[in-house]
Amino acid sequence: MTSESDFIASLRALATEPAARCLLDDAAVLSVGEGKLVLTHDMMIEGVHFLKDDPPGDIAWKLVAVNISDLAAKGARPIGILLGYSLGHSDEWDAAFTAGLRDAAEHFHVALLGGDTVSMPPDAPMALGLTAIGEALTPRVPSRAGARAGDILWVTGTIGDKGAGLRIARGEIAGSARLLGSYRRPEPRAEAGQALAPYVNAMMDVSDGLLIDASRLANASGVAAEIDLDCVPLSRDYVALCGDGQAERLAAATAGDDYELLFAAAPRQSDTVFTIARSMGMAFTPVGRLQKGEGITLIDSNGPVPLPGRLGYEHVS
Amino acid sequence: MTSESDFIASLRALATEPAARCLLDDAAVLSVGEGKLVLTHDMMIEGVHFLKDDPPGDIAWKLVAVNISDLAAKGARPIGILLGYSLGHSDEWDAAFTAGLRDAAEHFHVALLGGDTVSMPPDAPMALGLTAIGEALTPRVPSRAGARAGDILWVTGTIGDKGAGLRIARGEIAGSARLLGSYRRPEPRAEAGQALAPYVNAMMDVSDGLLIDASRLANASGVAAEIDLDCVPLSRDYVALCGDGQAERLAAATAGDDYELLFAAAPRQSDTVFTIARSMGMAFTPVGRLQKGEGITLIDSNGPVPLPGRLGYEHVS
Repeated sequence: MTSESDFIASLRALATEPAARCLLDDAAVLSVGEGKLVLTHDMMIEGVHFLKDDPPGDIAWKLVAVNISDLAAKGARPIGILLGYSLGHSDEWDAAFTAGLRDAAEHFHVALLGGDTVSMPPDAPMALGLTAIGEALTPRVPSRAGARAGDILWVTGTIGDKGAGLRIARGEIAGSARLLGSYRRPEPRAEAGQALAPYVNAMMDVSDGLLIDASRLANASGVAAEIDLDCVPLSRDYVALCGDGQAERLAAATAGDDYELLFAAAPRQSDTVFTIARSMGMAFTPVGRLQKGEGITLIDSNGPVPLPGRLGYEHVS
Repeated sequence: MTSESDFIASLRALATEPAARCLLDDAAVLSVGEGKLVLTHDMMIEGVHFLKDDPPGDIAWKLVAVNISDLAAKGARPIGILLGYSLGHSDEWDAAFTAGLRDAAEHFHVALLGGDTVSMPPDAPMALGLTAIGEALTPRVPSRAGARAGDILWVTGTIGDKGAGLRIARGEIAGSARLLGSYRRPEPRAEAGQALAPYVNAMMDVSDGLLIDASRLANASGVAAEIDLDCVPLSRDYVALCGDGQAERLAAATAGDDYELLFAAAPRQSDTVFTIARSMGMAFTPVGRLQKGEGITLIDSNGPVPLPGRLGYEHVS
């Protein structure tokens, strides 16, 4: 069956505008007069991207957050959203969803601009879509494709918390409310993205797993990525719950749903990057570097680490 | 259960930007520098908006067309689209869908800018979403809400063909390939919308049925609409297949999926409207007028006609 990447490849012939970035980026970047708009659309399907029993308000939050994360990766200031919503649960469900959408709209400073409401056939899973529109603040909007050999690869925040939160939500493990909360209401790095955009060579968000997303950034840029597993930033909650051995670091780096930023910057930008991190009260962590070549390799303090069979999440039908 | 209009009312508190037009319009109108972008998002669900056995290329065409129709109603020139696509049928299905998407993108002069591809759970109906972005060509972008008492209400093209085409597609009746074709690959009035925008007081597209959409335009404008059923323009194919008695005219005016433009213009603009129609090689037909008051009434040459129980299509869960 067609994989997501095969399908996207077949669509590339239709992506005739530079704004489409050959469908290789997190978002489209459309020149409008003197400015640039950044546009992104993500869907969330019941049973695939959220669980039937997830709180509706958290589903709404996440639907907004995943799109804001794409805008963040392009350094764009969020402006507005268009919602595609399928009715079909209960009045209470719809009201709780609307309340969560309001929370997210206020939190991320976006207005609801429009959209569509449809009915689903009985018993069909809910399908949600959201388009987010942002305004690029710098003339040069970072893509996935600009990283150079010699660049340092960084991530914002910590990796793996959402994967642990998902396991808590599924009842597979017991863990802290903070991990569960970070899975349910992720905090994409909109302000960090805006601050970093002028200084990075490439930037994307980590949505499908650090390793798969790093390999995508490297492939798009025509370079190889080397990740130091020992450098992958883990939260105290994650380490307390899961540990920080090699297996647990690999689990964190392939779990997905992080909504952190992954970016490549020249070594001479490191001071600026640390300064921005401090000004945000966050940690940005160097996790590897980019080199001539292709593909992704892992190391830790003991030397090379074999790649896991699965680098992250990819949709295959 | 929540109806579409109840749900949209509950969202209105989030529509804090003028660009949202209080969620009362076909599209959002976003000021960007000197210009204005028009943004719209429509979903199409298998079993609701298309039939499982519809040709995939036609489904793709329609998904683009329904959104282009919203841009047309705001007089916007289409620029690009973002696609939300659920994998899950076969490779052949995906390839045929892509081919139809290419046909539509070329026909409507839009580039694919981005989007999202997801997997659906097994046996779930397909859910598609499309966001279209256009550029308003005149500073005054028509809304649904600007019609005035005394305006003439017009429609472009003919009404009811798509409803007849749907019945042919369902095998309920046998009819012309032209009617079936117009249902499968509707032709929204992008150029007519751009030409008309400077001269109309209100404009929207006819997607859910002429009567329900006329009543929405009248309500949004705070006036009453009177439609002359005898004036509803029917195609020769429609009349040949269905006839043109009162019942058949009511069927046409409540069928939906027309993707024609419905607009209100001052009587002094009538010459201009006819001139634009001629220049497009189309007919634009006065079908009624707007008056002080509220609601919608029907007449024909014999006098008042009772409103049918159902004015068109409305989503209720």
